[in-house]
Amino acid sequence: MKKHNFSAGPCILPEEVLQKASEAILNFNDDDLSLLEISHRSKPFVDVMENARCLALELLGLENKGYKALFLHGGASTQFLMVAYNLLNKKAAYLNTGTWSSKAIKEAKLFGDSIEVASSKDKGFSYIPKGYEMPKGVDYFHCTSNNTIYGTQMKSFPKTSVSMICDMSSDIFSRQLDFSKFDLIYAGAQKNMGPAGTTLVVIKEDILGKVERQIPSMLNYQVHLEKESMFNTPPVFPVYVSMLTLEWLKKLGGIEFIEKVNNQKASLLYTEIDRNPLFKGYANKEDRSIMNATFNLVDNKLQATFDTMWKEAHINGLNGHRSVGGYRASMYNALPLYSVQALVDVMQELERKG
Amino acid sequence: MKKHNFSAGPCILPEEVLQKASEAILNFNDDDLSLLEISHRSKPFVDVMENARCLALELLGLENKGYKALFLHGGASTQFLMVAYNLLNKKAAYLNTGTWSSKAIKEAKLFGDSIEVASSKDKGFSYIPKGYEMPKGVDYFHCTSNNTIYGTQMKSFPKTSVSMICDMSSDIFSRQLDFSKFDLIYAGAQKNMGPAGTTLVVIKEDILGKVERQIPSMLNYQVHLEKESMFNTPPVFPVYVSMLTLEWLKKLGGIEFIEKVNNQKASLLYTEIDRNPLFKGYANKEDRSIMNATFNLVDNKLQATFDTMWKEAHINGLNGHRSVGGYRASMYNALPLYSVQALVDVMQELERKG
Repeated sequence: MKKHNFSAGPCILPEEVLQKASEAILNFNDDDLSLLEISHRSKPFVDVMENARCLALELLGLENKGYKALFLHGGASTQFLMVAYNLLNKKAAYLNTGTWSSKAIKEAKLFGDSIEVASSKDKGFSYIPKGYEMPKGVDYFHCTSNNTIYGTQMKSFPKTSVSMICDMSSDIFSRQLDFSKFDLIYAGAQKNMGPAGTTLVVIKEDILGKVERQIPSMLNYQVHLEKESMFNTPPVFPVYVSMLTLEWLKKLGGIEFIEKVNNQKASLLYTEIDRNPLFKGYANKEDRSIMNATFNLVDNKLQATFDTMWKEAHINGLNGHRSVGGYRASMYNALPLYSVQALVDVMQELERKG
Repeated sequence: MKKHNFSAGPCILPEEVLQKASEAILNFNDDDLSLLEISHRSKPFVDVMENARCLALELLGLENKGYKALFLHGGASTQFLMVAYNLLNKKAAYLNTGTWSSKAIKEAKLFGDSIEVASSKDKGFSYIPKGYEMPKGVDYFHCTSNNTIYGTQMKSFPKTSVSMICDMSSDIFSRQLDFSKFDLIYAGAQKNMGPAGTTLVVIKEDILGKVERQIPSMLNYQVHLEKESMFNTPPVFPVYVSMLTLEWLKKLGGIEFIEKVNNQKASLLYTEIDRNPLFKGYANKEDRSIMNATFNLVDNKLQATFDTMWKEAHINGLNGHRSVGGYRASMYNALPLYSVQALVDVMQELERKG
């Protein structure tokens, strides 16, 4: 029996995507070759890359608006430095909402001033800072839309004339936003998009070419744009699985559809966390993430019992991040509502026992 | 029927590896989860990474000799800049044997002097330069052991006290060498090791820490070594398939065994190229690659006929690189001898017809 997979990432992918991916390993495109052993310059793979790039823009509503999509190597961690390498002239503004923002700030410091406009570190990153001022003369403002570790999510973004850059690794394609507010969006694939090993970068072309420094080819957005995301051998399989997942999402009804399902799932779980006297939520209520719900037992003595119970219920990946402990239920696009119900059932069962 | 796959990379992988990889997409480790949806910090995947790193060192005979193996993101193209970022203080020596060396030289120029000790550009990179002098006071000497595009391969390496760095992307694990001569070896996975999307870096730890510049975390070998190749989410699937391929090679008898098979395959094809009056080899005979045989028709009028014939014989990937044309038969570790025989048969059939 397939497990209820609440893993924070790499995470659950749609069953039909896994099925197709598994078949492509043996025989791709009915061409008597594995997807893994064909040239990335062959038409079947060039089509995959093109399709994946188009689907990303289409689902985000960014077609014909001056944006291009790239599937690059390296994870969001590589984007922390690429953003600064390509765009940071003198100073940039960063909102610090946790581990990932902090890492982005650290890398940016190698290339210029990175000004922390606000931070929620004072309360263990359990909330999203608001009402901060945007410094003048910055090259860009950088934020992380969703923090997987603390279970917080930005519900609104600053109104500013400054170029906005957003790490959407853990909530891209999960909710409707006016994505055209952002000049650059990046997202590691391994949450709502695909397996680990590729990163989507959606970029407004006219923001490039404004720094003086020389940029190594593999770190240069312009180089990747000119080569249509094929400057070097791309991570073929992760790009293919991302394409399959984006196709699946489009077929379902796109972000508009999946957002409703995501809201249902989150509502079901948060209602139980708030109702059940044995549990308490970690994140500030108004900043709670629809993707990652973080919560704790009120009485830690119940931990062993609860852990046994959810594991017996075929639930996987419920432990909190190693840096914060407690529990974390990640409810990415591909997680079915019945998996959340299975978790809620266990929480209620614990209450009856406790 | 499975094709005879002479693709230059991504390229043929062992059938049993593809089979296991396909199964792992649906159910990994009998754990009712896909390999693609488990945490990279879970024990089953940490074991995969550890196993892959150990196997790489074991097969190269580099255990307990001060080396560590990393599986990184980004392809060999990222190594072109990482090598220089981490190791180039003032000047480095590069041997230019074609496209890949040229790219490595270009990236190194951003970080210091890159001295071209010799180049075979004068004759279309059809040979390996020899007898060049090693400049004094360089931080390292960099070379490319095998050039896929021109079909050349270094049969010997300079005797020097200078630190040697080698891009072995297209012939690693294919032949026995004293690998301890090298302080750093890197190889994109997509030839003899696995699918596109990860790069093996084998590094002698004591060569690090000698440059002054600050290195972004994702480009810093020291950071990856400290985190045991898990600084960020690694390219899970490409690392897993690489591990399977290295296990396959070990089971067969390691490099010692596969080198014999590779020599048989190359000998069969080169003998036919030299014997058959319709064909001529491209690379200088003494520098011919055991992995990639490049050749041309003496009379281009036969091209359409030959192309039809090899395609009808279920042969794939025989066209030369788009920059040089002609033909290229890549005979990586997983290509069976009978595939080379199938190609030789077509060449002989053309001779009978022609």
